[in-house]
Amino acid sequence: MALALALGRRGQGQCWPNPAVGCVIVQQGRIVGRGWTAPGGRPHAEPQALARAGDAARGATAYVSLEPCAHHGKTPPCADALIAAGVARVVAPISDSDPRVSGKGFERLRAAAIEVTTGVCAEQAMTDLGGFLQREVTGRPHLTLKLATSFDGRIATATGHSQWITGPEARHMVHGLRARHDAVMVGAGTARADDPMLTVRGHGPVRQPVRVVVSRRLDVPLMSQLARSARDVPLWLCHGPNPDAALAEAWDGVGAARIACDLVGQQLDIASVLENLGHQGLTRVFCEGGGALAASLLRAGLVDELVGFTAGLAIGAEGLPGVGAMGLDRLQAAHRFRLVESRAVGGDVMHRWKRDGA
Amino acid sequence: MALALALGRRGQGQCWPNPAVGCVIVQQGRIVGRGWTAPGGRPHAEPQALARAGDAARGATAYVSLEPCAHHGKTPPCADALIAAGVARVVAPISDSDPRVSGKGFERLRAAAIEVTTGVCAEQAMTDLGGFLQREVTGRPHLTLKLATSFDGRIATATGHSQWITGPEARHMVHGLRARHDAVMVGAGTARADDPMLTVRGHGPVRQPVRVVVSRRLDVPLMSQLARSARDVPLWLCHGPNPDAALAEAWDGVGAARIACDLVGQQLDIASVLENLGHQGLTRVFCEGGGALAASLLRAGLVDELVGFTAGLAIGAEGLPGVGAMGLDRLQAAHRFRLVESRAVGGDVMHRWKRDGA
Repeated sequence: MALALALGRRGQGQCWPNPAVGCVIVQQGRIVGRGWTAPGGRPHAEPQALARAGDAARGATAYVSLEPCAHHGKTPPCADALIAAGVARVVAPISDSDPRVSGKGFERLRAAAIEVTTGVCAEQAMTDLGGFLQREVTGRPHLTLKLATSFDGRIATATGHSQWITGPEARHMVHGLRARHDAVMVGAGTARADDPMLTVRGHGPVRQPVRVVVSRRLDVPLMSQLARSARDVPLWLCHGPNPDAALAEAWDGVGAARIACDLVGQQLDIASVLENLGHQGLTRVFCEGGGALAASLLRAGLVDELVGFTAGLAIGAEGLPGVGAMGLDRLQAAHRFRLVESRAVGGDVMHRWKRDGA
Repeated sequence: MALALALGRRGQGQCWPNPAVGCVIVQQGRIVGRGWTAPGGRPHAEPQALARAGDAARGATAYVSLEPCAHHGKTPPCADALIAAGVARVVAPISDSDPRVSGKGFERLRAAAIEVTTGVCAEQAMTDLGGFLQREVTGRPHLTLKLATSFDGRIATATGHSQWITGPEARHMVHGLRARHDAVMVGAGTARADDPMLTVRGHGPVRQPVRVVVSRRLDVPLMSQLARSARDVPLWLCHGPNPDAALAEAWDGVGAARIACDLVGQQLDIASVLENLGHQGLTRVFCEGGGALAASLLRAGLVDELVGFTAGLAIGAEGLPGVGAMGLDRLQAAHRFRLVESRAVGGDVMHRWKRDGA
């Protein structure tokens, strides 16, 4: 099951809106087939593993990291494929929360006299498939916030100088994290200040994540790298109601997609932004700042996971803060995150935290 | 030698202005005596280890973490004690930088036909005895800066609420770090805002470190915990030239010591503060902030070691920064620290950094 989960994680960021599932077929203690959700979401993990196994699947045990699907979508149900291949037993940690599947996949298998075992490695499966499951329940994708700062929590000097605070190893790891998410998201301020590409580089051929820019007024330069590459790598702009018509037309012209979101007061409602992204099929979103967007996500309690990189230099109080104003008076009012990992990455410290319950 | 070094570290913070030395006597592969510099600095490590060994010291090897002293101070020279005990060999990683000792201890031993080996574990010895050696060379003690912050680098909310950002395990570790330093130093702002005791608690009976407050104008409340405990635990105030006479008298009256330091412009010259502390015999100083003092130490390049504790919560940009204004435009102008350790301490991340060359 650990192998099935590890295989499943290979699909993270590559197969949205489908879940990144892994499957291993074991015949008399020997692995005869392996598979994981293919880039783009099809084929699913099970038919690939069964195809590899061939006749050896008859009487075998299939380990799948999520309940096999039971409905006709763009592919025939995987439960039927497992039945047709003649597997004797299916082990899956958790059931799917999709109402079209939930429990029905297991039912179908049991009805065909296949032994079904659930609950094995359920915690790891909930973690790996958290974005998919959360989107089904709340409509919002799993959100990871990255903060790469000096040890005094700054992301740039007062004059905006930010290249590079962290070292090459940390930056390489950030590209890897981008690849394992469906989308990379930044605020308009960061898009203007850094003129980033937000693509995955240095990790071989990958399905590039969608680039999402949160900009109430669409005020990102049309000559930016993001705009100029919008036909090659998806660029989505989350903006407020009634944007400037000429600007909207210009962005449509460069090939960007626009998503109108709600306001709270004068600000974009960040919950509405995430719900819209979930509605578009995103299951895992990686936010890279800036300070204002990070603060609004944290204030709203919408950060599921936090990845910090701390560098060995101080920038001082005039520097740009990694987290903007939060309007917090008492420490008790702050969301506390649970530390899950900390280690050196090159010359920097990497620390990973989760929201309690996430 | 590793044992001698470990024994020596037991004396850190307990024996200034003397070095915290350890000594192990080995006779035919068996440890027959151990010793380390006693609280207050006397007796030294060697005579204690020799006393434990008794006759077994004859023909034995003595492992000492620093060159044995050769001059008559408040105790007779340790080199003479080793000769009198009849040891056959002395192993010491480094020579003393004190001109009264440097090389003379080894010379004296060799003149008595004792075999002398140096260089073993020299790096660790330089680290352990760094404060003592640095004070002899530069006149300044080793300075450790502690920063306990939210993951966005804040030490309190805008309203000054700071208890507690980090958890009990991190705070316990901070008390342990205090105990291993000769003095704990804070700025006047922190002394006013937090009304701290700055003593070591929860680590059994220890020699309490000197409490040092850096306050140009002596503007710390005379009703503070620091002032009221000044007769029990040393309190030193580093102030500017020509302080208010009434205030100075009041502080003298409560039992605090005053140290007049130089100014640079309108600010206290932090290098002068450290030189004065070194002149008073301090070898290891632990600075606990606040932001202004941390910034002036960092700006001046006087931080030898940095210990960060990062907690799993965000306070936001209105919060009090852990490092004050530094006047830094380009990242290249910032001092880079080298990561030496990072790990979880309770629910927080602890990271330790050293100045390059420190």
